[in-house]
Amino acid sequence: MEKLLIGLDFGSDSVRSVLVTENGEQLATCVHNYARWAEGRYCDAANNRFRQHPLDYLEGVEAVIKGALKGQDASRVAGIAIDTTGSTPCAVDRDGTPLALKPEFADNPNAMFILWKDHTAIAEAARINEYAASWGGTDFRIYEGGIYSSEWFWSKILHTLKADPEVRAAAYSWVEHCDWITGELAGRTEPLTMVRSRCAAGHKAMWHATWDGLPSEEFLAGVDPLLAGLRDRLYTETCTADVPVGTLSPKWAAKLGLSTDVVIGGSAFDCHFGAVGAQIQPYELVKVIGTSTCDILVAPEIPQCVKGICGQVDGSVVPGLVGLEAGQSAFGDVYAWFKRLLGYAGDISLPKLEAEAAAIPPGSTGVMAVDWFNGRRTPDANQHLTGAIFGLNLGSTAPMVYRALAESTAYGARAIVERYRSEGVPVNAVAAIGGISRKSSFVMQLCADVFNLPIKVAAADQACALGAAMFAAVAAKVHPDLGAAMEKMGSGFDKVYEPDPAAVPVYEKQYQRYLAFGKLLEQETMRHV
Amino acid sequence: MEKLLIGLDFGSDSVRSVLVTENGEQLATCVHNYARWAEGRYCDAANNRFRQHPLDYLEGVEAVIKGALKGQDASRVAGIAIDTTGSTPCAVDRDGTPLALKPEFADNPNAMFILWKDHTAIAEAARINEYAASWGGTDFRIYEGGIYSSEWFWSKILHTLKADPEVRAAAYSWVEHCDWITGELAGRTEPLTMVRSRCAAGHKAMWHATWDGLPSEEFLAGVDPLLAGLRDRLYTETCTADVPVGTLSPKWAAKLGLSTDVVIGGSAFDCHFGAVGAQIQPYELVKVIGTSTCDILVAPEIPQCVKGICGQVDGSVVPGLVGLEAGQSAFGDVYAWFKRLLGYAGDISLPKLEAEAAAIPPGSTGVMAVDWFNGRRTPDANQHLTGAIFGLNLGSTAPMVYRALAESTAYGARAIVERYRSEGVPVNAVAAIGGISRKSSFVMQLCADVFNLPIKVAAADQACALGAAMFAAVAAKVHPDLGAAMEKMGSGFDKVYEPDPAAVPVYEKQYQRYLAFGKLLEQETMRHV
Repeated sequence: MEKLLIGLDFGSDSVRSVLVTENGEQLATCVHNYARWAEGRYCDAANNRFRQHPLDYLEGVEAVIKGALKGQDASRVAGIAIDTTGSTPCAVDRDGTPLALKPEFADNPNAMFILWKDHTAIAEAARINEYAASWGGTDFRIYEGGIYSSEWFWSKILHTLKADPEVRAAAYSWVEHCDWITGELAGRTEPLTMVRSRCAAGHKAMWHATWDGLPSEEFLAGVDPLLAGLRDRLYTETCTADVPVGTLSPKWAAKLGLSTDVVIGGSAFDCHFGAVGAQIQPYELVKVIGTSTCDILVAPEIPQCVKGICGQVDGSVVPGLVGLEAGQSAFGDVYAWFKRLLGYAGDISLPKLEAEAAAIPPGSTGVMAVDWFNGRRTPDANQHLTGAIFGLNLGSTAPMVYRALAESTAYGARAIVERYRSEGVPVNAVAAIGGISRKSSFVMQLCADVFNLPIKVAAADQACALGAAMFAAVAAKVHPDLGAAMEKMGSGFDKVYEPDPAAVPVYEKQYQRYLAFGKLLEQETMRHV
Repeated sequence: MEKLLIGLDFGSDSVRSVLVTENGEQLATCVHNYARWAEGRYCDAANNRFRQHPLDYLEGVEAVIKGALKGQDASRVAGIAIDTTGSTPCAVDRDGTPLALKPEFADNPNAMFILWKDHTAIAEAARINEYAASWGGTDFRIYEGGIYSSEWFWSKILHTLKADPEVRAAAYSWVEHCDWITGELAGRTEPLTMVRSRCAAGHKAMWHATWDGLPSEEFLAGVDPLLAGLRDRLYTETCTADVPVGTLSPKWAAKLGLSTDVVIGGSAFDCHFGAVGAQIQPYELVKVIGTSTCDILVAPEIPQCVKGICGQVDGSVVPGLVGLEAGQSAFGDVYAWFKRLLGYAGDISLPKLEAEAAAIPPGSTGVMAVDWFNGRRTPDANQHLTGAIFGLNLGSTAPMVYRALAESTAYGARAIVERYRSEGVPVNAVAAIGGISRKSSFVMQLCADVFNLPIKVAAADQACALGAAMFAAVAAKVHPDLGAAMEKMGSGFDKVYEPDPAAVPVYEKQYQRYLAFGKLLEQETMRHV
């Protein structure tokens, strides 16, 4: 009997599972939407505050594993692995319990997971960058693109410690979502000994082997006295995701109807597992395109520090290769924003609007946009930046504006490709996974035309969860290594978008305008910060 | 028995009449919407082409005069005067018949009136400006703000002559809407002898007494050979609006049920008559606020040439005073655009949206806009410019965007006040007329706060038509001069908006950002023209 593997992928709105055989046959999937999140609780979108309750995660784990196993032979399950969004940290107590799970913090957003796209920590990110640039010691940002983001671990921790004295007093340590939920299944949440993901630590917490892990105590205490002493209550060691975290705890085994022999694999962020699910090759950019994008590239060796991206970390994607991460803070979220804006007047069908936008010839309307509706992550993180729509006249219609918004997301994506190249990292091919890559041929064709590169789309609907299943297979020793798991379990590509030679020069010109206008917008914005 | 006067005001969408006694009692009003225009015929909003069929005007004259006279004693009517939008020129044949009234041109937009806001003649305006700056002779633009606009007479004529050989062959001369419709009622449409409005000629056709009327033949032929010879088929003399054009023609007297003794007064553009209707005083800015704005100021003497406005013309508003005109190409049109944009999803109530926008504290959202959705008229006409919305994030809502759009129109209005001042023309008071001034206390308060000046709103619902009735009274010698007519027939002000001291500094800061961002937008736009 073939062994079965379960991969879990915690996204922004829902968690998805896949149940796969060791040879890649997909037997079942299941999706669970976060209940509290769906109600908008604990969030304040106008101020970019996005928090998720740990109960949403716990309910989700149970729902999607049970859902995927319905009617299946649970005794064949050999391993489970999980990816999540990130940096999505949370304060925990001495036992590793997220504070929001304690009655006194049950409704306090500062005691919850601070979702990757939360931008409340802009001032703290500025402080970290200012201190890192001036303190005279090691610049711990160099492997994270040179600019520390408000979306990341330390910024969010510092902001919370400043904003909420009660959480500050109760927070013994901090965890990333991927580490905690994995540790929870394995019964290993004790903060000082729980397994910490190399991916999360290296890309978001300035962890690097050359400086003995996290940034030095001296640096952290210098950033803010509130951070003093925390380093010792975090971690020094990290693991790549091929290293097993343990086996299923008796509590969870009972709850899920699985054996305590099931191996719990290592974890990482969603897009990193997604790149593996899409069988990433060296110097290929795998774009995970959803509400935001995450753009993953692996390379045997990157001698230089690549500027303005979200980090380069040994083994963060594929053990033995350097994983590079970049991304756009908003992609599908930009389309969703426009749908919400129009939603003031009534519900619309985004596919219909998209079809009307697609029928407009490229470069024919004069309407353009800048995609920084959730700040800019790459190139050169800057959360002060905002979105813009320009070239509007009295005849500008909703499909024209929608087209401009879609184009702006493609220009933002191109800017990432160009940054890799200008920093000496070739981008030889592009693959795409994620909801938009499978749902919107308009947007994918736009990207191919704007990049002037073919873009292949992974066949897997749930590439991230599939990647997680591959790591589960490695952890459970179902396959000897990740390369074998990718080969046996991968599902290949089912569509290639070729650039349209007629559209390429039109978009090239518009891309240059996007860059020029964006530069002015950035200058103007920074003058008023 | 008191004499009665009829004033007609041709706006962008409709024509309105007032029937007033010689002492200012308003007996009746009537509104007629242009039927063909309402269907969007002959227009192409995406390309800023806006044309109106002369039949819409002829039907309108009859409807609103008959409508106002219903149940009244028509024998008491002493005079009629008319204002229209402008520059709204049309090609006419040897008899002064607009070409679109001839069967062979009945459906040709180039044979119709080219509405003030039509921007198809951008290239021709650029040519006129280029030639005027370089030809070495008199710069005929100096009394029109120094920049010739695509919205004006010669640009539109040249564009049409270039674009349509059939119209070119058939066009003997050209008329402004205000001259033609007035001449039509008086039976005086012969192009070489019909009365031409000082206001239209001086503000839009570079007519000035010091250079013997229109620009020289040498200049016009130099701009483009297509203009050669046209000057002799236009006019040299112009009349201020207190000079009667004639009496009602037998044809129209019969049609309207009026006597042929009824005097037809001189004509001008709507906002000029509106300023008179609002009892304009020297150094007071009267803002006519509707789809666009027209900002009128009168002064005893303006020794300098005021830069970047829409002209300074002896007697264009009040005979004996210099009339200065400025304005925004889109004001209410910006709000209407947003309603149309949202209209993709469903109908909305603009008053409800406005109420929600008004509830947002000033300066609290970061969302801002630039109001150049129909180019920029003043200060410094530039039809290449377009509208923009910036500072957008994922939480930006429709009321926030609406508020930003409304604020942008107030900033655009303030820029005009500042230009008058920086050119040495004091602005001591502000009065407002027009639909928005009476309908939107939100927008009017916004303007008062942004200007940091009180704004009084004229009591007359139809100030332009009332101004026309005042000119009709002068032409018919019911009152000895315009001053007497304004005093006897004016209806004063019924509301004053005082600036809110708390809001003033917030808007001052935002106004500076509007200026700075607009400057960048302008630079970027002009690099791509």
